[in-house]
Amino acid sequence: MAGNTLGRVFTVTTFGESHGPALGCIVDGCPPGLELSEDDLQRDVDRRRSGTSHFVSQRREADQVKILSGVFAGMTTGTPIGLLVENTDARSRDYDKLSDRFRPGHADYTYAHKYGHRDHRGGGRSSARETVMRVAAGAIARKYLAGRLGLRISGYLSQIGALQLAPLQPESAYENPFFCPDPARVPELEKLLWGLRSAGDSVGARVTVRADGVPPGLGEPVFDRLDADIAHAMMGINAVKAVEIGAGVGAITQRGSEHRDELTPTGFLSNNAGGILGGISTGQALLVHVAFKPTSSIQVPGRTIDLAGNAVEIVTTGRHDPCVGLRATPIAEAMLAIVLLDHYLRQRAQNADVRAGVPDIESHKR
Amino acid sequence: MAGNTLGRVFTVTTFGESHGPALGCIVDGCPPGLELSEDDLQRDVDRRRSGTSHFVSQRREADQVKILSGVFAGMTTGTPIGLLVENTDARSRDYDKLSDRFRPGHADYTYAHKYGHRDHRGGGRSSARETVMRVAAGAIARKYLAGRLGLRISGYLSQIGALQLAPLQPESAYENPFFCPDPARVPELEKLLWGLRSAGDSVGARVTVRADGVPPGLGEPVFDRLDADIAHAMMGINAVKAVEIGAGVGAITQRGSEHRDELTPTGFLSNNAGGILGGISTGQALLVHVAFKPTSSIQVPGRTIDLAGNAVEIVTTGRHDPCVGLRATPIAEAMLAIVLLDHYLRQRAQNADVRAGVPDIESHKR
Amino acid sequence: MAGNTLGRVFTVTTFGESHGPALGCIVDGCPPGLELSEDDLQRDVDRRRSGTSHFVSQRREADQVKILSGVFAGMTTGTPIGLLVENTDARSRDYDKLSDRFRPGHADYTYAHKYGHRDHRGGGRSSARETVMRVAAGAIARKYLAGRLGLRISGYLSQIGALQLAPLQPESAYENPFFCPDPARVPELEKLLWGLRSAGDSVGARVTVRADGVPPGLGEPVFDRLDADIAHAMMGINAVKAVEIGAGVGAITQRGSEHRDELTPTGFLSNNAGGILGGISTGQALLVHVAFKPTSSIQVPGRTIDLAGNAVEIVTTGRHDPCVGLRATPIAEAMLAIVLLDHYLRQRAQNADVRAGVPDIESHKR
Amino acid sequence: MAGNTLGRVFTVTTFGESHGPALGCIVDGCPPGLELSEDDLQRDVDRRRSGTSHFVSQRREADQVKILSGVFAGMTTGTPIGLLVENTDARSRDYDKLSDRFRPGHADYTYAHKYGHRDHRGGGRSSARETVMRVAAGAIARKYLAGRLGLRISGYLSQIGALQLAPLQPESAYENPFFCPDPARVPELEKLLWGLRSAGDSVGARVTVRADGVPPGLGEPVFDRLDADIAHAMMGINAVKAVEIGAGVGAITQRGSEHRDELTPTGFLSNNAGGILGGISTGQALLVHVAFKPTSSIQVPGRTIDLAGNAVEIVTTGRHDPCVGLRATPIAEAMLAIVLLDHYLRQRAQNADVRAGVPDIESHKR
Repeated sequence: MAGNTLGRVFTVTTFGESHGPALGCIVDGCPPGLELSEDDLQRDVDRRRSGTSHFVSQRREADQVKILSGVFAGMTTGTPIGLLVENTDARSRDYDKLSDRFRPGHADYTYAHKYGHRDHRGGGRSSARETVMRVAAGAIARKYLAGRLGLRISGYLSQIGALQLAPLQPESAYENPFFCPDPARVPELEKLLWGLRSAGDSVGARVTVRADGVPPGLGEPVFDRLDADIAHAMMGINAVKAVEIGAGVGAITQRGSEHRDELTPTGFLSNNAGGILGGISTGQALLVHVAFKPTSSIQVPGRTIDLAGNAVEIVTTGRHDPCVGLRATPIAEAMLAIVLLDHYLRQRAQNADVRAGVPDIESHKR
Repeated sequence: MAGNTLGRVFTVTTFGESHGPALGCIVDGCPPGLELSEDDLQRDVDRRRSGTSHFVSQRREADQVKILSGVFAGMTTGTPIGLLVENTDARSRDYDKLSDRFRPGHADYTYAHKYGHRDHRGGGRSSARETVMRVAAGAIARKYLAGRLGLRISGYLSQIGALQLAPLQPESAYENPFFCPDPARVPELEKLLWGLRSAGDSVGARVTVRADGVPPGLGEPVFDRLDADIAHAMMGINAVKAVEIGAGVGAITQRGSEHRDELTPTGFLSNNAGGILGGISTGQALLVHVAFKPTSSIQVPGRTIDLAGNAVEIVTTGRHDPCVGLRATPIAEAMLAIVLLDHYLRQRAQNADVRAGVPDIESHKR
Repeated sequence: MAGNTLGRVFTVTTFGESHGPALGCIVDGCPPGLELSEDDLQRDVDRRRSGTSHFVSQRREADQVKILSGVFAGMTTGTPIGLLVENTDARSRDYDKLSDRFRPGHADYTYAHKYGHRDHRGGGRSSARETVMRVAAGAIARKYLAGRLGLRISGYLSQIGALQLAPLQPESAYENPFFCPDPARVPELEKLLWGLRSAGDSVGARVTVRADGVPPGLGEPVFDRLDADIAHAMMGINAVKAVEIGAGVGAITQRGSEHRDELTPTGFLSNNAGGILGGISTGQALLVHVAFKPTSSIQVPGRTIDLAGNAVEIVTTGRHDPCVGLRATPIAEAMLAIVLLDHYLRQRAQNADVRAGVPDIESHKR
Repeated sequence: MAGNTLGRVFTVTTFGESHGPALGCIVDGCPPGLELSEDDLQRDVDRRRSGTSHFVSQRREADQVKILSGVFAGMTTGTPIGLLVENTDARSRDYDKLSDRFRPGHADYTYAHKYGHRDHRGGGRSSARETVMRVAAGAIARKYLAGRLGLRISGYLSQIGALQLAPLQPESAYENPFFCPDPARVPELEKLLWGLRSAGDSVGARVTVRADGVPPGLGEPVFDRLDADIAHAMMGINAVKAVEIGAGVGAITQRGSEHRDELTPTGFLSNNAGGILGGISTGQALLVHVAFKPTSSIQVPGRTIDLAGNAVEIVTTGRHDPCVGLRATPIAEAMLAIVLLDHYLRQRAQNADVRAGVPDIESHKR
């Protein structure tokens, strides 16, 4: 009800504030018998970590993930997996002068309305720092999906401001701090970001994530369609303003004869659907695009009100990214992994008996 | 788990196939003491009904909604409300020739994979006909929200193909069969649709829905944010490929200094957020854009495979819309109403004690 | 949230009041490919039906169950199964004189407090009539469990007042109107009931249900243990005041050396556990005892208050059973079937990969 | 789905094994603005702690509870409350010799069947040690209920073996290590326990918990009745074999004229219902009885099988209680507190608008 749990069978419940003693989560429903170590989680958490370039928040956290339960002798036991990351580099004083006013574009005003009493330090619960636990939990889902199904999740920065980035070398996205899928464009990106930094401003971005090797049949119509649950998960990442599947908003101007993906004995002829029809995976690659708004914490002075309702000016200092989308790729990948494992388990709950006897036109296993 | 229930406190569970004896739903968790009659539901259901223009499916259903429980002496009792609509104009024979092949862009292939055994008649469970019950249930939510909170939900067709439709007279959207918010543009629309009909083709569309008078504080971070649950609900409508909140994909190219909505004692200065910050409503108008793919049932011949995996040609006959987005407005409005009432009840579950003492800068009550 | 849904994967959501137009339910999450007809449901519903002896409510309902969706060509499709039973013999006038006062032992007072506005006719939603839908839904679960797992559920009246009834011929319980498992005791039972009828009074009862052929491994600790979910389901039947598993309250006076069920290569040596250890099924027979309070609708005058809070006298007329436990056996069996199928599907969601390699000491398949 | 979460609005999700590094839980949905410190939790946890007498497990754990999130400046913020207790006195070697055989009466055999791979040390997840977190979470619920509603929860040992203990001085239950509600009987209890210890055996017990000041109207029929959810919660405590409400199994032999609780303008004349009618609280005291089986870890040798299915003998050494019921009182109280707060919040979600206008015949507020 209070919405800190994601998933139905494979569930992730997180806790923790930006400047509290620790962040943590409970991963429940993980199948037993999965080899799992802290290193498996650390790899993904490190990809997400701040401080990896000049252009993301300069807060320096080790983000060391501890597994507190649910793993015995190197394998998951099927019981809940408790994870913990301690906060060590919180500088709460940076936020003291913000405690009496609402930062525009931030959750300050809405948390105050909803809960009355809030931890304002570093955004408290609404801080992007909370996503550390999503990445750690997502790493568990990823490992299961890769090992048992050969399912592979990848992502990259597909647009920043007006700069569109084609996935010419998508695997290179894992090798630069911007998750840029085309190494030749990295200098352009750096230039854009230095310009923003000088201006004390920020810009929006689009992140694309895909999954290859998704078995057909995942998704629970009519409401918990696979695309609906992906939209829920992605829109649940901080700063997201739009989620698109396959052709996305581009489908608005398409003709039916162009959009529909024809089937042939050797496979679909296109993938406007983004791998989902009627809310259920087709076996094609899953394609998801996520739009991030520009960071609201900028040095450009802005108007706001204080707790008493008076007009005041605000300038955000502290350590912030000029583009929140820059380090969102691992988070979006983690969210997709969690949704896919959850749906894989949901699917076999009801339908493990099914022998479809349907032509499997595109090998979805790698 | 099987995903036929929407909501957590105010829940809507639907059943029924396109060509089965009836469609129905159970609305649970409705507050007691709400005056409710079948007429209240019929009004919205009639808006959605097929056959209202030349350009939507020619199936003629009375769509007479019956209330079977949960209402006594004209008022809801707080017990589950059972709703029923009988199917009377199903022509299953139209579909007989489609039972052995998978229509491109349809859920045929994926339902077959998921469940093994499916009711192919008229799309079975995946038919848009199922949305009748959503509209009926949404009408209950709407009535509560309007009466108790003064909250008003409205919508319109904001784009069809390349034609963008500005809401010059949004209330006029209720007076033409296209939900066009600018009566001067209706002739253009008709021309576009006649062209599509001649070509046996279809086109995509964008529908915009808004809610005015939303109280601040609705939404359950970090996962069940108001925008996340709206995205889930909207992506759960047939044929939807993208959901945007406020500036949506437009936020990608915005600067932070442009996107953030500044606050003043008399209100926010803009609404790029679309009424939601940190996953919680701000009290501003809620703005949601939904992208629909073009109808896949078209007369243009296409390639597909049959049950045995052989290549075959397909031409969809039967009664279909050249643009599914055309009658989607009442459905999107209903989904928004359900999500908002559900979140209003969720909010008061945990936070009814809160006396925020926060400036309420924009009157959200009408 | 509003609690009209039972189960997590195999879910049953019911609606309907005693004197409304119809009762109904939606069974969601049923595995596809199960042969199912209305006759399958009717058999169990008929067992439960009132009017089968002199000693149960004289209301005469046909209780004809209709399947409205989810079954195509004689097999379940995996989509929600809508069920409907029309009310035809409601005599609301019998209840008119009760509308202004609260019947002791009934839900009148509490429904009025909770919802403010209630349908008082025949107990409205709190009537035992609502259990028709549970029996119909349970019949679906039973058929799946019997066909796929060889799991068999049976039950009988094990005590009525001071009369303890040993299961000498448990299968005979299906052949007399009292579900008495020892035909020789039926005359005693009749005598007891005629006595109660003359006195206008009623008496409590205990019903025992068991399941044979339960696979080991069902149950989701630490909270949704199999026994915990059975307790929830059974305590959710009208008039139940206690639920016992295996030795039940008898365990209080047992020694550990007596209670613990020792294991041998050929099986457990006893079954004090009632087939559940640590909240998980052992593979032994599941044993559940359910205590029913005496019917509160009796002819003995009693004291109560009216809507204005004044002391008044009450005598319940209308058509009522001298012992609600008398027809509870099919209901308790249905609830057990629903819980078991739900847990079977939950188990395979998380643990379908498990190859336990554990000795299976007692064949649980029949 | 994996069942480690209790509650719907006020939810408690636990993790941790007996011999792992730590136990923890996330309490989500707690209303904001509640004053809360670690001391508030420690008080209840200390009551439950082992090592408080000669007759409970000699494991010595400090059980120091840490609050990791959700509390700021001494008050809850409405965000998830993370709790942690480190394990410091686990002696895993005691269990090494048990890793290859299944202890009778324990969850060893069933966990092995369900999950394949298990942490056998100290019972792993099935250890009663896991209940520490329930008590800590329950303390939060208790504090809210006491402060806002004046609701008070108390409990005591009402039977151990054949010894029935009347609540002559119920408040004294908090002052002796057995939770005995009659100080005069403590010597008898000690004698019984020394006898068991000498025999290396154990015995069962009954614990009674009650709640005074429960508002009328709590409970969500037809399935999530207050009594059904209490039964679920109590049966979810380790070693419980029966749950009774009010008259409980005693209702079987009662007449209707005796059982029904008559109403008068000054209150109910009896409380056989145990404070619940039709699944909804009446405003009377809530009465719950819980039956615990005797500890299965005893020194009396027993028969069992090993992993290979061979017959072997087993003698449980290690540190164990001769009666698990002895320290169950705080756990049962905690479970009741969690269920009641959850239902209080559920009730106001749907029914906060209700102005019942019904006579409130017994003051339920203290």
